[in-house]
Amino acid sequence: MLSELPFTLPALRQAYADGVHPEDAIAEAFRRLDGVADPGIFIHEAREAALAEARALGAPDGRPLWGIPYAVKDNIDVAGMPTTAACPAFSYDPGEDAFVVARLRAAGAICLGKTNLDQFATGLVGVRTPYPVPNNAIDPEIVPGGSSSGSAVAVAHGIACFTLGTDTAGSGRVPAALNNLVGLKPSLGLLSARGVVPACRTLDTVSIFAFTVSDAYEVFSAAAGFDAADAYARDMRLGPLARLPADVTIAVPDEATLETFGDMEQADHFHADIDRLQRAGVTVKSIDMTPFFDVARMLYEGAWVAERTAAVGARITEAPETLHPTTLAIVSDGLEKSAVDAFEGIYKLQALKRRCEGAMEGVDLLCVPTIPNFVTRAEIKADPIGPNARLGTYTNFVNLLDMCGIAVPTGSRADGRPGNMTVLARAGEDDRAAALALTVETGLLGATRWLRPAAALPDAQPRDDEIAIAVCG
Amino acid sequence: MLSELPFTLPALRQAYADGVHPEDAIAEAFRRLDGVADPGIFIHEAREAALAEARALGAPDGRPLWGIPYAVKDNIDVAGMPTTAACPAFSYDPGEDAFVVARLRAAGAICLGKTNLDQFATGLVGVRTPYPVPNNAIDPEIVPGGSSSGSAVAVAHGIACFTLGTDTAGSGRVPAALNNLVGLKPSLGLLSARGVVPACRTLDTVSIFAFTVSDAYEVFSAAAGFDAADAYARDMRLGPLARLPADVTIAVPDEATLETFGDMEQADHFHADIDRLQRAGVTVKSIDMTPFFDVARMLYEGAWVAERTAAVGARITEAPETLHPTTLAIVSDGLEKSAVDAFEGIYKLQALKRRCEGAMEGVDLLCVPTIPNFVTRAEIKADPIGPNARLGTYTNFVNLLDMCGIAVPTGSRADGRPGNMTVLARAGEDDRAAALALTVETGLLGATRWLRPAAALPDAQPRDDEIAIAVCG
Repeated sequence: MLSELPFTLPALRQAYADGVHPEDAIAEAFRRLDGVADPGIFIHEAREAALAEARALGAPDGRPLWGIPYAVKDNIDVAGMPTTAACPAFSYDPGEDAFVVARLRAAGAICLGKTNLDQFATGLVGVRTPYPVPNNAIDPEIVPGGSSSGSAVAVAHGIACFTLGTDTAGSGRVPAALNNLVGLKPSLGLLSARGVVPACRTLDTVSIFAFTVSDAYEVFSAAAGFDAADAYARDMRLGPLARLPADVTIAVPDEATLETFGDMEQADHFHADIDRLQRAGVTVKSIDMTPFFDVARMLYEGAWVAERTAAVGARITEAPETLHPTTLAIVSDGLEKSAVDAFEGIYKLQALKRRCEGAMEGVDLLCVPTIPNFVTRAEIKADPIGPNARLGTYTNFVNLLDMCGIAVPTGSRADGRPGNMTVLARAGEDDRAAALALTVETGLLGATRWLRPAAALPDAQPRDDEIAIAVCG
Repeated sequence: MLSELPFTLPALRQAYADGVHPEDAIAEAFRRLDGVADPGIFIHEAREAALAEARALGAPDGRPLWGIPYAVKDNIDVAGMPTTAACPAFSYDPGEDAFVVARLRAAGAICLGKTNLDQFATGLVGVRTPYPVPNNAIDPEIVPGGSSSGSAVAVAHGIACFTLGTDTAGSGRVPAALNNLVGLKPSLGLLSARGVVPACRTLDTVSIFAFTVSDAYEVFSAAAGFDAADAYARDMRLGPLARLPADVTIAVPDEATLETFGDMEQADHFHADIDRLQRAGVTVKSIDMTPFFDVARMLYEGAWVAERTAAVGARITEAPETLHPTTLAIVSDGLEKSAVDAFEGIYKLQALKRRCEGAMEGVDLLCVPTIPNFVTRAEIKADPIGPNARLGTYTNFVNLLDMCGIAVPTGSRADGRPGNMTVLARAGEDDRAAALALTVETGLLGATRWLRPAAALPDAQPRDDEIAIAVCG
């Protein structure tokens, strides 16, 4: 039954091998969207275009993402669809695909439409939008997470197999944690920023939401490619997803700096995740997170907010009424910062980088809870800034420190809320972060009842809490 | 005769091996200083301290710079001497040596004192100081060059064997060109900035003036060392000075962008230098310098001037009368720049970096005239800014592009003025730049009548315009 088909890469490929046509899968995607009945997920639905594209695919042609339904955060250009960045007055017709979208299109993927976001990708909550706020796919009392809210929710409901987000402060990871997904945040410069509305140009990256680590990594590999026209692109080789080497050392927050703002379930769940890793032979080192948190605070309290001010531009002073009030308040802050502030911030960051490098000495990866705790829509209504800032505890420092990371579901907490860990690595070691994530991902897929497939790695064995399924294609 | 002894490393070592004691060499250094009778060279003369240190050296102990007289630009800390940065009101007692000075001290070098500079290392002319302006060692009508004016002049007269400068915009290269010296500007982060008064912290480096490439490189190697306490230090291996590989390709400015502001002698001399290289088997590629010049302009016209503003700090508004008027005018500009300006400058630089990288594709080194033309003291009196900016034509872009370089004398121009070429390389390729410089250095040493010794490299042969001398020690 198509309605029961998990939208993972292996399951879709199997279905297509069994004779299902992508047009039917795309139709099913929109049936699911209609069933969820959440007008906040998409800003632009490309129903007819997607069906037509799928129809035009013809017979399987071997392309890696042939017929795979996906969606794109609405700050990334897709030819034929407006780009709004969740600011209707900003809307433009991009004319052509963003570099990464062009690569996915060339790989055969079918775009379902453009998803909602915190306006100009400024926020971690998903409620800073003039469009309807998407519901969290797991629990509508919780914020959907942002800024890539619609992209996360679309995957969590099984509407899309994967989605593109962006990540500057954690927008590709926090919504993954809140919707029980994988959120892959590449090293800066591996996915071209051409055709992406900037937030902080020195810190932005496109990101990927998917149900599983291997799906996310496969999409990442398809979208990656050096783009000489993107000044921030980096020509780094992306390693294949492989098993973790035997002798891995991870750092974790020590007891004094495992910040969960009083959410003991979150701390307990994280401890259990780390215990699992330790039993699997990983060496664990507790570190003081203070310098990382000091870096995290610089993103909004320091001069980097002026990057957002630069990105939004004259609209702040000339048409402030076209901005979401919270967004306006935040990006206006950047107008007050001087170039001296900016350089002093850069110096401070450089000094903190050294302290963080010191903390990471002898360590391969850093594992943290993706979010410290959960934020309700009521809380963010009462205080639009504070709870948002708390959500960035374990994400805000990552891009400033030029690290890569992957948020990965680690099963339900004792209270049923989704557990999620982020594995962080140094720039260029995306494969290493994903390899560890692969060993910890567990639980049902997103908000669905679908079982997690075993990753199809060479000689990988299913773990005792996984179900082995055959994967072809 | 000690009065005729060239203050090069080989000659001093030979003299010491022959029984001369460093105390006599230090006394000779001060006799030379007295003979030159230029009160503008040193801000602080450490006559008694240097003699006492030399006396205390005892017998040769094998240290690489044992008894070698040198001087330090007065924005670098030397224990027991005030640091002024050519701003008397800023003067402080540093208490301890700068990291590089401590290394030189440990290597046995003897510091003669602290040299004059353009205040806060802001300038390329050497006249922006409240102290007497040092005379150019070759021609007193010409500016001495800056900001490391005193350091260059001290070597050029043979008072010091080498001196430390700093280089942000070209302060370690322009005075070398104007005083017929080698000016070695290392890759950023190879010489610790600890104990150095900042100009633009993201772009500053300590630099070295000497008569010869091999002397400069040896001092560089002695001073270099990773300093974990300097946030901008880089842990890069410094290769030894060696012969140039056979198949080297250099880029040079094409005819349209070989800017000499009408000084045809300068263009002719540069062409002759390049012809010599070509005859020696080097492959030469002409490139359009426009993107490099666009970068150069950003240093003072863009937001980076705010780094200088940050460095000078509250003095600009609270005690402006303590600043040189030209310095005040320049660093005040930074107060007008916003953080948005700073980040937009950073974006623009990143885009230009890509264009410059493109121009350098397939090229090992970039060779340029160190200065486009000469500037007289009368010209800079008439216009304190314009001629200074022109002097940075071939230097201002270098640190912004994270390149290293070495300015090297290439013999006299037809009119007798010193010819000087700068060899630029990518960060970390300091050895490669020095190797090419070694093949082009020629002519008498500084403002002296001393002949240039042949470099003592393994199987290096004297060139036909050099005189072979035996070098020991």
